[in-house]
Amino acid sequence: MTTTEQQVLDRIERARRRAPRVREEHITLAHGAGGKATQTLVEDVFAGAFANPALEPLDDGAVLELGESRMVMTTDSYVVSPVFFPGGDIGDLAVNGTVNDLAVSGARPLYLSAGFILEEGFPVADLRRITASMAAAARRAGVAIVTGDTKVVQRGRGDGCYITTTGAGLADRSGGLGAARVRPGDAILVSGPVGDHGVTVMLARGELDLAADVVSDTAPLHEPVAALLDALPEEVHMLRDATRGGVATVLNEVAQAAGVAMTVHESAVPVRPAVNGACELLGIDPLYVACEGRFVAFVDGDHADTALGALRSHPQGRDAALVGRVEAAPSGLVLLKTAFGGTRIIDLLVGDPLPRIC
Amino acid sequence: MTTTEQQVLDRIERARRRAPRVREEHITLAHGAGGKATQTLVEDVFAGAFANPALEPLDDGAVLELGESRMVMTTDSYVVSPVFFPGGDIGDLAVNGTVNDLAVSGARPLYLSAGFILEEGFPVADLRRITASMAAAARRAGVAIVTGDTKVVQRGRGDGCYITTTGAGLADRSGGLGAARVRPGDAILVSGPVGDHGVTVMLARGELDLAADVVSDTAPLHEPVAALLDALPEEVHMLRDATRGGVATVLNEVAQAAGVAMTVHESAVPVRPAVNGACELLGIDPLYVACEGRFVAFVDGDHADTALGALRSHPQGRDAALVGRVEAAPSGLVLLKTAFGGTRIIDLLVGDPLPRIC
Repeated sequence: MTTTEQQVLDRIERARRRAPRVREEHITLAHGAGGKATQTLVEDVFAGAFANPALEPLDDGAVLELGESRMVMTTDSYVVSPVFFPGGDIGDLAVNGTVNDLAVSGARPLYLSAGFILEEGFPVADLRRITASMAAAARRAGVAIVTGDTKVVQRGRGDGCYITTTGAGLADRSGGLGAARVRPGDAILVSGPVGDHGVTVMLARGELDLAADVVSDTAPLHEPVAALLDALPEEVHMLRDATRGGVATVLNEVAQAAGVAMTVHESAVPVRPAVNGACELLGIDPLYVACEGRFVAFVDGDHADTALGALRSHPQGRDAALVGRVEAAPSGLVLLKTAFGGTRIIDLLVGDPLPRIC
Repeated sequence: MTTTEQQVLDRIERARRRAPRVREEHITLAHGAGGKATQTLVEDVFAGAFANPALEPLDDGAVLELGESRMVMTTDSYVVSPVFFPGGDIGDLAVNGTVNDLAVSGARPLYLSAGFILEEGFPVADLRRITASMAAAARRAGVAIVTGDTKVVQRGRGDGCYITTTGAGLADRSGGLGAARVRPGDAILVSGPVGDHGVTVMLARGELDLAADVVSDTAPLHEPVAALLDALPEEVHMLRDATRGGVATVLNEVAQAAGVAMTVHESAVPVRPAVNGACELLGIDPLYVACEGRFVAFVDGDHADTALGALRSHPQGRDAALVGRVEAAPSGLVLLKTAFGGTRIIDLLVGDPLPRIC
């Protein structure tokens, strides 16, 4: 590495370490997109105000003492538009998304709450369809929806149906998982093709003169996660589901938190041809597109094949792939080895080319 | 009671027992108001779909096994308009409301999650003010905000800021509390003046040419609840915070669930003169107006004075009052003895004269 390159990286590193500060006066869509703007908002406004040991902005679930038990708690609001799309709807999305945040935290998902914010005029038949879909997703994931709340806002103050789910689970295996365990030499795996969900929702909006044979990947991940952790209880170092911001955002957040670099081989990342085609037409990199049934695993490099075998033993991980490796430096950066033999930095995006995807 | 009266009551009872069914094709503001329309929506659409032993539509919190511990979990979405009002804002409301649902369930409030749905254009300074207010309320209630999520929707698809909080607590004392324990002879107490919050928010909208010197009662209730339960660990039969739909809705729901009647003396219900005045001008009964820092207690009738003393020992219960008594019949009805010596039925309202109060 030349001195000039090192200087650039040092400058990037200094910028990264500066306390983040929201500079905008008003909230923009980017603040909800899961990228840099969201990270800044969370670190400046939320983490500052709510500071406590359990609140870790990076992690999707908080590990908590509850009497003699250890619990994981996680929450997500769902504002996907449209509420129905090929392969799913806001209901199963809201159940699966929260189940998955628990699963990748190493928790056994048990209970969900659901808060509904409905817009006046929303069809009751659609609400029935959504609750039926939530119930089916909860059965499939083995969780119970135990408490809820409904509010209604006037026309023009909502968009049909928003749902906030909160999940609680037993922290069976949470102790051994986390960015602190990710180290150089770890293998990076994805559990299946990326970008299906985001592209599906975008096409379902019908704003683009584009059709593709693709459905959302929304699914519960507790079983493939368990298959992986059963096979390698010690060797799996961290898991993250790749939702808002896609796989690229997960890799960046983990690289920053763990103080490591990541090298990813573009040709090794599984992407369906239809997703690739849609992304090319739109000028979007599929690595940034949200999935709702895929996760990234960081596993001891010596056990990558066992991990891949364990994932592929489950239908939900049939197309799992080894996509790259954790390196020592340059700390905090994700490097993509392109199909053409080049290397480029895959940075966090400020916003998201696809708003309201989940 | 004459035969005719009995026939009327039988007919009401048969109607009540019929499985509730939402007849409207579209969601209306009434479905979110906490009255009859909400009850029907919850029983028909939600309880039907999510049926499981822990889901009790009546109770605000679900009591759950989590490993060796017993947990209470509860959730509420907050859509109050305006977000700032005299005495509080949507932030402390969202913390106190969920803390209070845990407290009246007999749980020790410990952890909160917070999901934000922000409208594009919402001032970042307002969000800072709201999160500061949440943090202060959490400190006051002794809970930690441990996990959260932020989504942003386009202009015209929200209304500034909506917050969904979910609370988890240890079910220290939840075993002995519930509608099943409410019985004829129980004393009915309220912990303070009713209706302050609802009237304050309504006046803060500025749509009425009316001013009154009143501020929201938003406050955490875990301390006055603990004072009461410490004094009468066995004799307190049930507690409920009187939020959407006010004290009248609490009384109706408990009367129906417990299969008892309630007699309330209008002149015994504490209502501030300013609240009374505003309600009179608007033609609203303060018994239906939301509080956010008041609860109703059902206590063994022989220990009403001890209960009152325990409540009044805490600043938050200084103006507590004994307002009525549980009777055996007519089952499911709430009867108000008016200041003029008459009796009238206080039924559940279909909707709410004051939408988006919490």
